[in-house]
Amino acid sequence: MSHSPIQAYNLAAIADYCGAILKTQNPDKLIQGLAAVDLAQAHELSYIRGGQYQKFLTSTQAGALILTADLAANYAGDCLIHPDPYLAYAQVVSLFYPKKSLTSGIHPTAILESGVTIAEGVHIGAYVVIGAGTEIAANVIIGAHSVIGAECRIGADSLLHPNVTLADQTEVGERCIIHSGAVLGADGFGFTPQRDGSWYKIPQVGRVVLGNEVEIGANTTIDRAALGVTRIGDGVKLDNLIQVGHNTEIGAYTAVAACTAIAGSAKIGRFCRIAGMCAIGGHLEITDHVTITATSMVTHSIHHAGVYSAGTTIQENSQWRKNAVRFHQLDKMARRLVELEKQIAALQPKN
Amino acid sequence: MSHSPIQAYNLAAIADYCGAILKTQNPDKLIQGLAAVDLAQAHELSYIRGGQYQKFLTSTQAGALILTADLAANYAGDCLIHPDPYLAYAQVVSLFYPKKSLTSGIHPTAILESGVTIAEGVHIGAYVVIGAGTEIAANVIIGAHSVIGAECRIGADSLLHPNVTLADQTEVGERCIIHSGAVLGADGFGFTPQRDGSWYKIPQVGRVVLGNEVEIGANTTIDRAALGVTRIGDGVKLDNLIQVGHNTEIGAYTAVAACTAIAGSAKIGRFCRIAGMCAIGGHLEITDHVTITATSMVTHSIHHAGVYSAGTTIQENSQWRKNAVRFHQLDKMARRLVELEKQIAALQPKN
Amino acid sequence: MSHSPIQAYNLAAIADYCGAILKTQNPDKLIQGLAAVDLAQAHELSYIRGGQYQKFLTSTQAGALILTADLAANYAGDCLIHPDPYLAYAQVVSLFYPKKSLTSGIHPTAILESGVTIAEGVHIGAYVVIGAGTEIAANVIIGAHSVIGAECRIGADSLLHPNVTLADQTEVGERCIIHSGAVLGADGFGFTPQRDGSWYKIPQVGRVVLGNEVEIGANTTIDRAALGVTRIGDGVKLDNLIQVGHNTEIGAYTAVAACTAIAGSAKIGRFCRIAGMCAIGGHLEITDHVTITATSMVTHSIHHAGVYSAGTTIQENSQWRKNAVRFHQLDKMARRLVELEKQIAALQPKN
Repeated sequence: MSHSPIQAYNLAAIADYCGAILKTQNPDKLIQGLAAVDLAQAHELSYIRGGQYQKFLTSTQAGALILTADLAANYAGDCLIHPDPYLAYAQVVSLFYPKKSLTSGIHPTAILESGVTIAEGVHIGAYVVIGAGTEIAANVIIGAHSVIGAECRIGADSLLHPNVTLADQTEVGERCIIHSGAVLGADGFGFTPQRDGSWYKIPQVGRVVLGNEVEIGANTTIDRAALGVTRIGDGVKLDNLIQVGHNTEIGAYTAVAACTAIAGSAKIGRFCRIAGMCAIGGHLEITDHVTITATSMVTHSIHHAGVYSAGTTIQENSQWRKNAVRFHQLDKMARRLVELEKQIAALQPKN
Repeated sequence: MSHSPIQAYNLAAIADYCGAILKTQNPDKLIQGLAAVDLAQAHELSYIRGGQYQKFLTSTQAGALILTADLAANYAGDCLIHPDPYLAYAQVVSLFYPKKSLTSGIHPTAILESGVTIAEGVHIGAYVVIGAGTEIAANVIIGAHSVIGAECRIGADSLLHPNVTLADQTEVGERCIIHSGAVLGADGFGFTPQRDGSWYKIPQVGRVVLGNEVEIGANTTIDRAALGVTRIGDGVKLDNLIQVGHNTEIGAYTAVAACTAIAGSAKIGRFCRIAGMCAIGGHLEITDHVTITATSMVTHSIHHAGVYSAGTTIQENSQWRKNAVRFHQLDKMARRLVELEKQIAALQPKN
Repeated sequence: MSHSPIQAYNLAAIADYCGAILKTQNPDKLIQGLAAVDLAQAHELSYIRGGQYQKFLTSTQAGALILTADLAANYAGDCLIHPDPYLAYAQVVSLFYPKKSLTSGIHPTAILESGVTIAEGVHIGAYVVIGAGTEIAANVIIGAHSVIGAECRIGADSLLHPNVTLADQTEVGERCIIHSGAVLGADGFGFTPQRDGSWYKIPQVGRVVLGNEVEIGANTTIDRAALGVTRIGDGVKLDNLIQVGHNTEIGAYTAVAACTAIAGSAKIGRFCRIAGMCAIGGHLEITDHVTITATSMVTHSIHHAGVYSAGTTIQENSQWRKNAVRFHQLDKMARRLVELEKQIAALQPKN
């Protein structure tokens, strides 16, 4: 069982495919696969996009590299020059590992309730269940065991991996990818306390709407709105195990890394980058072009683009224990500092 | 594909339904739907429950509002007066969006192993699998693709959404709601190290028991006890992507927000409110009526009701980096502060 | 519906089974079950492995205890002496709760695509779907509704609970256990920004490989490598709701508790213990025998074995609010402290 590409390409063909300038004595040199720069062999292509991987420029065994013009100037071997080596590499991956073409058709075990409309070129896998009135546009792929509720819409060319759950009225744009275990449209977490302390459930009657080219990671959950819409903008990328609360809006082209939780009714701007395991509070706004580093708690709105952080970083445990205790005394320390400053000022010799 | 309510109601009928006092010149005014106070139109009803939304009292376009008597005194438009506007609103949602009635019956693709008992009024969806000896009480709904283990019990009127997994011997009370992707009864995380550093698995032979009116969010996991029971009390509400470890007990009417992890053998009291992304340690107790704010790490028992917090909040990254470094020096700073205090005391003029 | 063991054993048989030395006047005493030391009754066996549970040595009602020789010296009742009481107890659990034996066979609703090979003794549950070319070794159990991709390999004696998803080319070793809702082999989170700020997807063409005796918790996600392999070593134990990014490697016998996120291309050593809700950054290395306590953020490599920590612990909210504000001023406080030290030094009487 091999997982290498089926076909080899020569350097000239690869450069042509990704729009790179070829620098070699041997444009016919055959490349049989791709690998990370520290692992690549003589028959493989790799890339360097700068940073800590530049050190491999002198030691790599790769048959050729994709490099920026700057890096290429210092590299004696065969290379493909491209202003964005990582982008060019990504394109070449598609050349070596073309997507499997699935024959369109509806698996005989799939269950379609009344009024489901299926456009042409659609592939529906084994044991898929689709609720009444749902519309599936052209070339959609729905993996085995996915459950699609009633009155959903899935836009053209979208791909749902196996075991995805879309609740009723969920809307997915075009060219979206939803990974296994994702749940879109479960009830938002809305309760109001009654006099005896028990909770009264607020019916959650809104829905989830994804724009185009959205990607949703494995086991990520996006709750339906209480009323109205939980909206994920065009080109948003959500990693695995992310929680998006009811009525939240995420602006176009924002990317969110794994295990981040976004509470209800948050409004997150466009082109934001939110790292892993952040906690974004509810009913707040984050403007466009905000970056939030890992494990940050966001408890108020952010009105200015920039990079924001919270949390503390690891240290040896015995030191940390002492410091964590002192954190509990921090306000008192600050007050004692002010007091000392006063006392010292009083002790200074008078002019 | 519309997601608006099917039927309109006049103000008098709505006030009657939710037990509110109607203040209007026009009790026959027709309301066609519900919306948030800042979005509601002239044909829609909304509510204000205080806080930051009070500012919309003067600008809302809503056809009518549900308000407290205090707020109503300052509102010229049509309103329904109720001591708890949010609760009244929640009731009105049920009026406008009545639950879909599912015809009872067992889908022909459902697989019931030997000795499964199904009471009347039960709906079992497509491809559901139910293990031997499981008892399903009256009016239970089990969504498509859910897998119920052997010797489980599901109490009357409970709702399992599609793709729920209950392992063997899991017990669900009455009127519970379990959302898609939830896994109840997977093995607790129990291993003991052997001499060579490898792990010996402790068999997990207990089970999960939910009380009545429990709600479990999407992709939340509750592990079976090692021995005995992992117990979720009556009226507990768990949001999405929560982890509950083996042998943990959560007291009645406690609510837990998304992405919180509760380690094994924790005992959490009743009427607690635990915010998102908290980490509750194992083998500790939290008394009743404790509130824990988001991202807090709880490493010891809490014996007194109150509000508890941990963590740090975001600031601009370049400032945060400096502060995070200083956190590592905090104990030393505290010691230097003590030293300064001594030195200053020594410098003070003697009496 | 009972969840107690089927059969009783006498003390002599139990001691023999787990290799303990029996200290009793009555080796024929019948034990009918197991329970925690504070709950055990006269017909039940329990154990104490030290720590806070030692206090129950005088009050337990258990019919017998498994104890170390030291503890046994202070215990008047019947006991089984073993150098590792927890390990002995774990073995005895297997005696009282033997694994259910499943009859081998392929459920008639299971769908096997072309070229699937199934060794002897395999049990494949209802509605399982297995992709083309996948190899299932002897005595594997695949629970209902699991979806196995194409060209996967599952090693002998492994157990997949219901509703597991393995994407194409995933490789699982021997004697592994994968819990419900786990997703192995979803795409890594790899995108590169284009000039207009939109994201270009890096095709994820690597795979996930698990060693032998790996356990993966419920709803945990392990992403396939961009290129190459995301590798989980022999005997690794992952709890629920964990994220493992693409190209990450976890060394043998490392255990990770729930809700921890490990970013891409991290290399984690062997025999590490990572507690719950930690965030491990990408492209870093953690050496062998490192322990990381709960909620720690790891942003740089760890080259020395030891215990590491980050985060702050709970305190009463009104105090915490003051301290959290001061954290934002911590660097300034440190600078003011240095300034004070200078001023005081200047004020000291000259020698």
